[in-house]
Amino acid sequence: MIKSWMALKMDVHLENSPLSRKLGVFVALSQSEVTVLNGLHQRRRTFVAGRDLVDQGQSDQAAYILCSGWACSYKLLSDGQRQVVDFQIPGDFLGLRSVLLRVSDHSIVPVTDIEVTEVHAADLLDAFAKTPRLAAAVLWAASRDEAIVVEHLVGVGRRDAGERLAHFLLELGTRLTLVGMGSKAGYACPLSQYMLADAVGLSAVHVNRVLRQLREKGLLTFRDGHVTFDNYAKLIEFAQFDRSYLDEIGPLLK
Amino acid sequence: MIKSWMALKMDVHLENSPLSRKLGVFVALSQSEVTVLNGLHQRRRTFVAGRDLVDQGQSDQAAYILCSGWACSYKLLSDGQRQVVDFQIPGDFLGLRSVLLRVSDHSIVPVTDIEVTEVHAADLLDAFAKTPRLAAAVLWAASRDEAIVVEHLVGVGRRDAGERLAHFLLELGTRLTLVGMGSKAGYACPLSQYMLADAVGLSAVHVNRVLRQLREKGLLTFRDGHVTFDNYAKLIEFAQFDRSYLDEIGPLLK
Repeated sequence: MIKSWMALKMDVHLENSPLSRKLGVFVALSQSEVTVLNGLHQRRRTFVAGRDLVDQGQSDQAAYILCSGWACSYKLLSDGQRQVVDFQIPGDFLGLRSVLLRVSDHSIVPVTDIEVTEVHAADLLDAFAKTPRLAAAVLWAASRDEAIVVEHLVGVGRRDAGERLAHFLLELGTRLTLVGMGSKAGYACPLSQYMLADAVGLSAVHVNRVLRQLREKGLLTFRDGHVTFDNYAKLIEFAQFDRSYLDEIGPLLK
Repeated sequence: MIKSWMALKMDVHLENSPLSRKLGVFVALSQSEVTVLNGLHQRRRTFVAGRDLVDQGQSDQAAYILCSGWACSYKLLSDGQRQVVDFQIPGDFLGLRSVLLRVSDHSIVPVTDIEVTEVHAADLLDAFAKTPRLAAAVLWAASRDEAIVVEHLVGVGRRDAGERLAHFLLELGTRLTLVGMGSKAGYACPLSQYMLADAVGLSAVHVNRVLRQLREKGLLTFRDGHVTFDNYAKLIEFAQFDRSYLDEIGPLLK
């Protein structure tokens, strides 16, 4: 009796896992699909902030599903320069590319202490064989990740510093809202100005100045680990933020 | 008799299609998997150079598999600036993201006249249900596309103009070689200097100057629609080109 209650509790917990919430935007998950998805959450691991869990150039790498905390994927150039590719939040895959591409094309470091589940290529294949709709959902998640990187490319290539930073912080807010960790009012944000700088291709000093300008314009405030949207509508207009690439309309596959 | 010979010829043609060559790098395709893959090549269409076949913001969009010719995916900003995300060559998907994300986050324009096959979301789901290994292969292809965009982000964010352009042209050469359209000697390239400029975030005048410098250094020559690698080894060193993100090692899934 107690055991089945425990199992039920576990199921409820996993049904509401950030990943199933996120995939649920694309595909209305059936009970059996949720069960297969839960099967990917077997190997729990924790990593401490600041120590790489995947190194660029590493092969035979597992992928991870981020359950709690924030991570950062980045590339190092041989001259020591760093480009942050993206930050990962709960429900995101870490290193999904690495498990398929064999040699990891990037490094991943936890921004905070994180809890993950480890996923091997074989686990994914098994899950796809059991439910092809899940394969489509994972492909959707990968497509969304790619759309996010495309936006960062457009930002670094074509947006001025203020628009770029505002766009970036709006994007994080929208992603966090999807997994229940943010709203139009703002969100808790553990990123340093150095990390932000490496993501948007500015210096930390420049990021500091731009944040001050955004605050003085009454658009947003980033202070003490919290992003506050002071005027959400005006900020969206300022950043030309079209959220459709984050694809939150609701299940395409019923 | 003639009919079965025709069918055989068609099969042989498709087995050697750029897409099956490309996916074959990741998964050793069985006969039945090749048959499913061929099933995606039902709706042939052609598009003329210069006229968009997918518009940013368009919804309910099909995806395409590029059979011949070159295409270009790009984003327009509201102030009219353009950022090229990537160029597509035979064997690449066009708008795979759009079919899954519902609203296309980018536009696609044929660089040359192109031949494609149209793929709907339902076709992909059917194919995944028939052979989950194909789902993994398509996810691999999407991951590789993402890795390419990541390199473009690193290029625009952190590489100087010469390295950036050299890296970009080496990448195209490696991708073309995989589908039998290039070699370490070079490749036919229909891109204008304007298109290259919008891809690497430089002006066309700057691209012209950098190309001259690369030629004068004895590294590469881009002239009359042809890229010639004058010194492949030295060029790779110059551009810090680590091709592992293009993942050409050979089938992971036997």
